[in-house]
Amino acid sequence: QAIRFYYLYNHWAIRVAIYFFIFLNLSLALFEEPAVYPLPFLATSLIEVLCLCAFFGRLVQFAKVTPRTVFWKDTKNICVMLTILLTLLDLIIYGSLRVFNIHSVRWSRFLRPLFLINFPESRQIRRVFRSIRNTLPEVLYVFLLLMFNVLMFSLMALKLFGDRNLKTVEGSSYFTNLLDIMFDLYVLVTTANSPDVMMPAYNLDWRYSLFFITYIVINTYIFMSVFLAVVYNNYRKHLKNEVRKLAYMKRHKMIEAFNILKTKEGTEFVVKEAQWKQLVKIVAPDISNSHRELLLRISDEEQKGYVDKKCFLRLADLLNIQVITIKFKRHPLEIWMPHVYKSSGSLFVQKVVQHRVFVWIYDVIIIINAVFIALDEKNPLISYAEWVFLSLYIIEILLKLYTYEPKTFFARNQFWNWFDSLIIIAALMATIANAAIKSVIEYNSQQILDIVFVLRLLRLIRIVDSIQRFRVIMTTLINIIPTMLTFGGLVLVVYYMFAIIGMELFQDKVLFFSESSTDPHALDCGNPALEDSTFARSRYCKNNFNDLASSFIVLMELTVVNQWHDILSAAKLFFIAFHIVVVILIVNIFVAFILEAFFVEYSLEKSEIETTIEKKIQELGMGIQEENIPDGQLIDNMETNENDLSGGEEMQRQSSEGLFFRIASKRYRTVDALLQQMFESEISPEDEGPSLDEILNLSPSDMHPKNPTFENSA
Amino acid sequence: QAIRFYYLYNHWAIRVAIYFFIFLNLSLALFEEPAVYPLPFLATSLIEVLCLCAFFGRLVQFAKVTPRTVFWKDTKNICVMLTILLTLLDLIIYGSLRVFNIHSVRWSRFLRPLFLINFPESRQIRRVFRSIRNTLPEVLYVFLLLMFNVLMFSLMALKLFGDRNLKTVEGSSYFTNLLDIMFDLYVLVTTANSPDVMMPAYNLDWRYSLFFITYIVINTYIFMSVFLAVVYNNYRKHLKNEVRKLAYMKRHKMIEAFNILKTKEGTEFVVKEAQWKQLVKIVAPDISNSHRELLLRISDEEQKGYVDKKCFLRLADLLNIQVITIKFKRHPLEIWMPHVYKSSGSLFVQKVVQHRVFVWIYDVIIIINAVFIALDEKNPLISYAEWVFLSLYIIEILLKLYTYEPKTFFARNQFWNWFDSLIIIAALMATIANAAIKSVIEYNSQQILDIVFVLRLLRLIRIVDSIQRFRVIMTTLINIIPTMLTFGGLVLVVYYMFAIIGMELFQDKVLFFSESSTDPHALDCGNPALEDSTFARSRYCKNNFNDLASSFIVLMELTVVNQWHDILSAAKLFFIAFHIVVVILIVNIFVAFILEAFFVEYSLEKSEIETTIEKKIQELGMGIQEENIPDGQLIDNMETNENDLSGGEEMQRQSSEGLFFRIASKRYRTVDALLQQMFESEISPEDEGPSLDEILNLSPSDMHPKNPTFENSA
Repeated sequence: QAIRFYYLYNHWAIRVAIYFFIFLNLSLALFEEPAVYPLPFLATSLIEVLCLCAFFGRLVQFAKVTPRTVFWKDTKNICVMLTILLTLLDLIIYGSLRVFNIHSVRWSRFLRPLFLINFPESRQIRRVFRSIRNTLPEVLYVFLLLMFNVLMFSLMALKLFGDRNLKTVEGSSYFTNLLDIMFDLYVLVTTANSPDVMMPAYNLDWRYSLFFITYIVINTYIFMSVFLAVVYNNYRKHLKNEVRKLAYMKRHKMIEAFNILKTKEGTEFVVKEAQWKQLVKIVAPDISNSHRELLLRISDEEQKGYVDKKCFLRLADLLNIQVITIKFKRHPLEIWMPHVYKSSGSLFVQKVVQHRVFVWIYDVIIIINAVFIALDEKNPLISYAEWVFLSLYIIEILLKLYTYEPKTFFARNQFWNWFDSLIIIAALMATIANAAIKSVIEYNSQQILDIVFVLRLLRLIRIVDSIQRFRVIMTTLINIIPTMLTFGGLVLVVYYMFAIIGMELFQDKVLFFSESSTDPHALDCGNPALEDSTFARSRYCKNNFNDLASSFIVLMELTVVNQWHDILSAAKLFFIAFHIVVVILIVNIFVAFILEAFFVEYSLEKSEIETTIEKKIQELGMGIQEENIPDGQLIDNMETNENDLSGGEEMQRQSSEGLFFRIASKRYRTVDALLQQMFESEISPEDEGPSLDEILNLSPSDMHPKNPTFENSA
Repeated sequence: QAIRFYYLYNHWAIRVAIYFFIFLNLSLALFEEPAVYPLPFLATSLIEVLCLCAFFGRLVQFAKVTPRTVFWKDTKNICVMLTILLTLLDLIIYGSLRVFNIHSVRWSRFLRPLFLINFPESRQIRRVFRSIRNTLPEVLYVFLLLMFNVLMFSLMALKLFGDRNLKTVEGSSYFTNLLDIMFDLYVLVTTANSPDVMMPAYNLDWRYSLFFITYIVINTYIFMSVFLAVVYNNYRKHLKNEVRKLAYMKRHKMIEAFNILKTKEGTEFVVKEAQWKQLVKIVAPDISNSHRELLLRISDEEQKGYVDKKCFLRLADLLNIQVITIKFKRHPLEIWMPHVYKSSGSLFVQKVVQHRVFVWIYDVIIIINAVFIALDEKNPLISYAEWVFLSLYIIEILLKLYTYEPKTFFARNQFWNWFDSLIIIAALMATIANAAIKSVIEYNSQQILDIVFVLRLLRLIRIVDSIQRFRVIMTTLINIIPTMLTFGGLVLVVYYMFAIIGMELFQDKVLFFSESSTDPHALDCGNPALEDSTFARSRYCKNNFNDLASSFIVLMELTVVNQWHDILSAAKLFFIAFHIVVVILIVNIFVAFILEAFFVEYSLEKSEIETTIEKKIQELGMGIQEENIPDGQLIDNMETNENDLSGGEEMQRQSSEGLFFRIASKRYRTVDALLQQMFESEISPEDEGPSLDEILNLSPSDMHPKNPTFENSA
């Protein structure tokens, strides 16, 4: 029953539900005051209670599948429980005060992202947070040094320019107050007020520009790079450490499993073949019989009927390598109506589609399409041409589906096929929807038209994949996407917290009036203090904290840094805090992450174990008579079509069994996996891992690594 | 005689003279039209001819010490010759046209930085240029992808916003022309027009901001990081390659030297001790006898009287390691008047100065000084306090000089001692000069007062060195300085070229009028086209290309990127070119360089050879009876004073000889040297280097590596 409970706990539907509730809970801020779409307090509070119940239920479920001591030691469970309690408390207080018409602050909203961080599924986000926490001390020292520097330069500026009676463009006095100077120079570090802050002094004497140039070189260029270096170095160190921990844990668990299953055979302990097979079946139910057979052959090199300890310990790694078993699948059409599909006309079509020229023709079509898009839409001839292009693309996909086996065409690693098809189908649907709406209300829906435009342009991206040099870059970028989502989560958490604080602090301080408004306050954004300021003159009134969407956009603008001193100069501390957290820490981690991804892509070679498997596949392939089956063409062509020159793909046909084995190429593997592989290769295979002490010291969040083997063998 | 010629060629005075002429030639642009300090054409052209003669003379000298074939194969010699010829031609044409009062363009000024690049001494700058050249193809592909992206988004923006009749803040139409959109979006990549370009669309509907946010995430964050990754990766690869080349060359030359010197001893060829010593004496005349003896003991482990091949090949590496031989030097005062210096009062003073509390007291004094500086200068009490502080600092230096032996105090690696003393002496001189001027003309010279202010503040920096955590960062930054000068040279070359082009193109397009000017054109910078533009309103008129100094400052502002679209929106191509060259390439190389420096600092451990030497020093030390000599205290104290926790310093006393050997710590070694060491450790000692073919393929610029051993042993 415990196992059934465990499976229920791990059921995908429940996980999805929890994520749904987390995002529902987060999105409540959209409907609460200050709201984008206002809902009554009763509705939002009911939804919030519902979410809290869901979180509590999940926690109870987790408690049932975890030993009690482990559960209560885990800070994240306690954190979730506390957050639930505090949120309930806040709801009750706020609700009861509301009954008496007393307005109070919903402070617990600030805690909502904690649910996202602390649920076991968001391990990645926690990892980044831990990485940030470990980086903090070092970043702090560099930051202190930077602030010392800013202070020194500010004192210098005060002495040099304070007594000159200079005026800024806005007419206020220039560099007379130490705190203002420090803020101005801090902003200069971010380059946001770059020439402006210098101009009054420069206009006086060109030699004073040397002061600012020195400052920029030291603080903007050198110190910002030092921040990147520190963050990057720590990110790497931390990542390496975590991966090493995981690898040791895995090995430890594998040894445990071995000790349970072992039987004595001669002088050494081994695991019998039957038990080994059973284990693999339980651990990895998805893999095919032939794949399992392949793994056995690798583990039991000499076919002695058992697997020794060293080979057994490698099992987890073996299972982690994606060996794609490709079954010979005949095209469904070939099965249903073989005569038609195998007719000469049909074969000719297939040959044409498989030919390189077919790809080139469509590249030309895409370019022509791009030119048409750039031309004026008003001409009816051109808007009809759009239909022609759409149908051409649809024909392309249908032809390809006719030629290639659909499941192969939509295999998991065929990114561009998926991309193409989704874009085209979406464009088709949007165009039809637009036509339908037009015929009913005789008017184009602007939203749908916008979507159609965007989809049309996205189609053009495919041409990038035709050029080899671009593919490498694109592949890395595509590989980065999954981990980028982690950063998305991280940024969401930080933005959400800052947005909630910002909304409480600055709500309705700045109002937006539409273009046509005749309100006298339209010129000062509804705030007399802003009259005639750069902020109002640049029409930044919509950059405010009046609802969640606006807050997020303002925070995004602050992340980009430019003009941020203008956006809200009144709240200097808020913005400096935001700058330190987001720009110095998170953006640098993001940059570090992209750098690392590219370096891995540039440097990684095949791992030792992969080579072993490949050799084995080749050996087995060599032992079997090869036949030339026309369907083999399909895979070959797909390969050619992919133009993969990385040499990372090895393919061997086991024709008699109608099977292909293939090691998934480096393309389309996540950077995380590549990194883990890189670091794991540094641990020697003989290393039995750390002592039990160290494993006990590992934080519980590490108890569920990605590796399926270990999770089940435990 | 050839050798004498060679020594003359290498004489430091001649090198300095050549550098002087190079900078004289470059600085001519300050005096030529458009000039900061105008000089007649005759004067500047005469100076230019003089410089050309100097360059030609140097070239002739170089030809005499280089084999003819090598000389004529070297592209840099030919380049210099061509530049001299072209410059002369340009001078003649320009001069003769001037006689007939026809104004032409001095185009050869553009070529002047070539002298700086192509002289053999500026190897480092050439290396960076070569690194850039090798990076170009990859950067180009990423750039094309970026431009493709910009084009896609521009098309999208045209479709989405083109027909909405939106207006920018300046009242011009918003996003209606594809080229303008592309430029605006390209500027957005640099974040310079960050919220402004978005505001009209955002004011219309907040959902349009998603378009810009997507754009910024993809292009600003991801693509800019990819540029950094590509540049960094190539920089590393290139650096590694160059260092490997150098190492192989070195080994090859060492083998040649071995073959010349070898004699047969038993079954193997060896080099006799006497010959070995003679060689070391020629190759490294600076090192002391005892140091040479130490090296011999390492090379000839078993004291057999000869050095075998393997140990001989290590000689160059051995010589490269800075072993500091510290001779026991008595304090000069002790020699002149031992009674006074050794008296109990004097010893007490010395003890006080060596004590930790002495350092702390001066840290407190510095902090008090900082507070005084921050306070108002007008109060006479405070301006007198300045004299007190100055004298306190002078007393500190005198006390230290009294306690420590002056040569040890001003040793090459005592950065802070040098720094302190120079600052104090300069401050003293400036203050006295100011007082002198004041007593004569009864008026403070503002320039000198400014300098005094700056010097006063620089003194405060020393406090950073008292805190251990800051030292590590500071040490790395100090280590970076020499290589930073290389970047200075590089930036100078690029800025100079852009400045010359900019001056020819935009000279006098924008005029600066001083604050008090009543000229009606003061409001539009003397250019009607700029009337009521952001440029004129922000009082940017001084950002022009009217002379070299202004041009450099404008280019600096463009490097910082912010507001650059405002600074000269008319010359879009010029600015895009500058952005690509300076921001994408050079700034990224700079960042890569700082990253690398910090990673090396974080990761480098002692090399194998260093460990050997250390062991030997210890062995020899162990063999000799140690005595406690009071002077030993000095070094110990200096060490403690330095607070070096890096563990990189090993010190062993050979007291009977009155000598210390010490391996120079990682601190204060240039990053370049550390990097070379890191990469060299990757070449196995057995590797005999590449074939002669490959060495012949090495470019001639690699013929003069830094290593003195190899240059002379050739």
